[in-house]
Amino acid sequence: MGLGYQETLTLPFDMIDVQQELKLPGFLAYCLALSSRQSELLGFGDKEVFEAYGLVWVVTDYEVEISCLPRYQEKITIETEVVAYNKFFCYRSFHIYDERGEVLITILAHLVLIDFETRKVSPLPEELLVLYQIEEDKKVVRTPKYASLERAVEQEREVRYFDLDLNGHVNNSKYLEWMYESLGYDFLLAHQPTYFQLKYLKEVSPEVLVTTKVVQTEASSQHEIWSNGQLKAQGIIKWRRRDDSRN
Amino acid sequence: MGLGYQETLTLPFDMIDVQQELKLPGFLAYCLALSSRQSELLGFGDKEVFEAYGLVWVVTDYEVEISCLPRYQEKITIETEVVAYNKFFCYRSFHIYDERGEVLITILAHLVLIDFETRKVSPLPEELLVLYQIEEDKKVVRTPKYASLERAVEQEREVRYFDLDLNGHVNNSKYLEWMYESLGYDFLLAHQPTYFQLKYLKEVSPEVLVTTKVVQTEASSQHEIWSNGQLKAQGIIKWRRRDDSRN
Repeated sequence: MGLGYQETLTLPFDMIDVQQELKLPGFLAYCLALSSRQSELLGFGDKEVFEAYGLVWVVTDYEVEISCLPRYQEKITIETEVVAYNKFFCYRSFHIYDERGEVLITILAHLVLIDFETRKVSPLPEELLVLYQIEEDKKVVRTPKYASLERAVEQEREVRYFDLDLNGHVNNSKYLEWMYESLGYDFLLAHQPTYFQLKYLKEVSPEVLVTTKVVQTEASSQHEIWSNGQLKAQGIIKWRRRDDSRN
Repeated sequence: MGLGYQETLTLPFDMIDVQQELKLPGFLAYCLALSSRQSELLGFGDKEVFEAYGLVWVVTDYEVEISCLPRYQEKITIETEVVAYNKFFCYRSFHIYDERGEVLITILAHLVLIDFETRKVSPLPEELLVLYQIEEDKKVVRTPKYASLERAVEQEREVRYFDLDLNGHVNNSKYLEWMYESLGYDFLLAHQPTYFQLKYLKEVSPEVLVTTKVVQTEASSQHEIWSNGQLKAQGIIKWRRRDDSRN
C-alpha cells in the first residue's frame, strides 16, 4: 500500500439527497478533489501535472461497495491512497469510515493520464508515482465484461452546461447520476445501492444528446450511455430493498 | 450587523465549471450549508430548529453582486452574518473575498422558516435570533416587481431525483441552474454574470415537468419557472461580455 491521506467531514445538506443520505454521484467528484489535495501536498497536484506534461487525470473505472450510506450531519472520515500502478493505470482506493471506525463505503478508482490536446492516454511519468511511495506492479486490474443489453428501456437527455467539468467533457460523476435517474423516482425511494461498477469508454462532449439504456430487476440494474452512435459508458448497480423500519 | 462567521476554502474541481470558474448555482447551496454551521456552533442548527419547532429554513429571495468569479484552486474566504430580521424574514449576507481581501461576490439571502408539515411560513422564534446578536428591525427589504414576460423562449424539463433536497422539494440552487441552462452553451461561454436576483414563489415537487421561460438581451436575461400552471420562481441576471484577453 502507498502513502495514505485522510480528511474528516460532517455531511452538509448540499451533499444529501431527499432521503437525507449521501448523494453518491457528486461524492465521487468530491473524493477525486480530495485525492488531488493529497497530490498537491506532495508537490504534484493537477496543475503541476498539467504544466509539466500537458496531462490530465481521467477515471476509466469505478468499483464501489456500500455497506451503509452516511446520513445528514454524520461525521465521516475519507482515507485515500494509491494502491498500485502499472505502465498506464494508477489504482486509487478510498475508504469512508463512520465515527466508530466502521467502513461504510470503499471505492476503487482506475485512473489514467490523457494528453489534454490529443486526448490520448499517456504512460504514467515515473517521477510522479514515486511520490506515493509505491512500486510498480505490472498487473492490470480486471474489469467486468458487460453483456450487451437486450430490450433496454431508453431515454434521451441533453448534456447541459453544468454537466461539464474543467476538462471540457461531461464529468464522470454525471454518468452515475444519469444511470440513477433512468430508474425512476419510486424505485430510488424504495431501494439502496450496495455495489456498483462503472466503465468509461469514451468522453461525452458539450451540446449533444445522450441516450440512457437500462435493464432493471429488483436486485440490480445494468446501464449503457450512448451518444452519436457510440457506446460511451457502461455500469451495473446492485440494489437492496430498503428496510422500512429505518426510515 | 450581527455576529460574523467565516471559513476559507481552496476551490476544488468539483465546484468549478468548464471555464475553470466557480459554479454559482451549487455555491448558493454551499453558502447556506456554511451558514448552518454557524448556527450549529451557536447551539441552534437546522436539526435543533426542526426538533424544537418543526420548522425548516427556506430562502425566498437572493440578491447577488459579482465583481469577479473566483477560479479553480483560488483560495477564498466566505464570511456570513445575519444582518437584520423582522417578524417573518431573516436577512443573511455572505461576502466572498479573495486572498488580497478584495470582495468578489456579495450575496443577500432572505430566509423564512416554514412548518415542515403544513408548509406555511411561521413567525421567527425570538430565542433563535438573539443568538446572532442583532435586534429586530421592522423594515421588510423590498424586492423587485417583475414585469411579466412577453414573447419568452420556453423549454420543458423534468424534475430529477438529485434536484431534490432533504426538504422534499427542488433545492433552490437548481432554479438558478435551470435559468442559466435556458440561455444556451455559446451565450454562457461568451458572458459572465455581474448580478442576479431570484424570487421563489412556490415549491416545486418531485416528478413534475417544469417550463423555463426566458427573454434575453446581450446585457440581461429575465426568467420564469412554471409548473402545473403556477409561476414558481422569477429571476433576472445581468451579464457582461467576456474580456477575451483574460481567457
